Amino acid sequence: MKKLSVIKIGGNVIDNSEKLHQFLLDFNALPGDKILIHGGGKIATELGVSLGIEAKMVDGRRITDIETLRIVTMVYAGLINKNMVAQLQAKGCNAIGLTGADGNIIRAVKRPVKEIDYGFVGDLDGASVSSATLDSLLRAGLTPVLCAITHDGESQLLNTNADTIASAVAVAMSSLYETVLVYCFEKRGVMRDVEDDNSLVPEIRMQEFESLKQEGVVSGGMIPKLHNAFEAIKSGVSAVYIGKADELPQINDQGFGTRLII
Amino acid sequence: MKKLSVIKIGGNVIDNSEKLHQFLLDFNALPGDKILIHGGGKIATELGVSLGIEAKMVDGRRITDIETLRIVTMVYAGLINKNMVAQLQAKGCNAIGLTGADGNIIRAVKRPVKEIDYGFVGDLDGASVSSATLDSLLRAGLTPVLCAITHDGESQLLNTNADTIASAVAVAMSSLYETVLVYCFEKRGVMRDVEDDNSLVPEIRMQEFESLKQEGVVSGGMIPKLHNAFEAIKSGVSAVYIGKADELPQINDQGFGTRLII
Repeated sequence: MKKLSVIKIGGNVIDNSEKLHQFLLDFNALPGDKILIHGGGKIATELGVSLGIEAKMVDGRRITDIETLRIVTMVYAGLINKNMVAQLQAKGCNAIGLTGADGNIIRAVKRPVKEIDYGFVGDLDGASVSSATLDSLLRAGLTPVLCAITHDGESQLLNTNADTIASAVAVAMSSLYETVLVYCFEKRGVMRDVEDDNSLVPEIRMQEFESLKQEGVVSGGMIPKLHNAFEAIKSGVSAVYIGKADELPQINDQGFGTRLII
Repeated sequence: MKKLSVIKIGGNVIDNSEKLHQFLLDFNALPGDKILIHGGGKIATELGVSLGIEAKMVDGRRITDIETLRIVTMVYAGLINKNMVAQLQAKGCNAIGLTGADGNIIRAVKRPVKEIDYGFVGDLDGASVSSATLDSLLRAGLTPVLCAITHDGESQLLNTNADTIASAVAVAMSSLYETVLVYCFEKRGVMRDVEDDNSLVPEIRMQEFESLKQEGVVSGGMIPKLHNAFEAIKSGVSAVYIGKADELPQINDQGFGTRLII
């Protein structure tokens, strides 16, 4: 089975042009087939402010109304995605920038309205990702760069969580490729002691997860992150890495972040 | 040789949601492989106004400064392209929206500064279009939808004339496909009498072009349009059509616009 890396970066890399430049160099240097997934960043918020459109929040949750959807479509699929593609091309990576609407790669369902109407937000299920289309792009020598916009198959674009997209893409591709999923975020990984930068937990097996939660090594926002990672592993992904973008080159000798395995 | 239609639409279709809906239905109904190329429209100008960025003009020519490039990247590659793709998907067309940076499909050269500095504007040459990548997308069952943004291969996105892109794509693809190039614009085609809507010239052969110019049947902005069309034909395109978007379905029985042939 061929190897595939699905790598997700967030706003902290996107908003910093030097960091982004270095990350794209490191991304391009990784061996094997690759898919990059990116979220937004401050640019969308700033454009909203310039246009006098305030971020809509209900109970601390961000709402994607029609104006916000227009902005994220412009910023994620246009400005960020295409500049990232042009930079990757200059670095010798044959990148192709896509939303989930392109090639029907990710079909989502508009989140049902319960207590909160999240607006134009897409949720994914096991059948959302078209692995065949992504495979044909990879076989054509292309490197897909996906932004966090999907569609519902009925003309509606939908704002979709980039972490969720990364996980769904990795799971879907694991039927065709030996797939690892890499989340780049602010920290070096799971830390035994948040104050001590040398306390990185290099590996967590699924069976250790419960006891690490009880010990408090994994807490707060890391719990759902790791839970979702192990769900992806249960569904076929070989390993999930969580670490810092600027340490990405160390993934080749298992020195990157925390590695989650079965 | 397989058949391919390269179809260009402009702002008059894009700015009118009903017209666009009908055009996309008609586009999807055309037989054979297809590539759609779209320009901008009023949306980019309107966004510029909302952001307080005025269109820069020098000697009546539009200049693409860095702010304008950001806007057209957001509007053409993001808002217009992705909404068009989502609509085509809903109509059963497996569209994939692209700039020239994606897959290195169109590499341009930033226009050299002579009397006027046009800013971030791209010019094309005979080697600009990667027909192999477009071919592999078509073979994967995808329908490329190209917006008027290219890149220079060195990280720089460039604003590029959509008519020029359409012509360059058609010429490049004519080595692999029997290619027709279709320009949709405001008029029914070349008219013998601009006042008479029934005076459409259904066909012009290259050898007739000179005499039609002398008779004044072809005049003004139509002269360079037809000149470029015949250049494309000389370079391998089977035929070029110039006509009205809402008459597109009539192309199957030669009833669409003015047909230019060798």
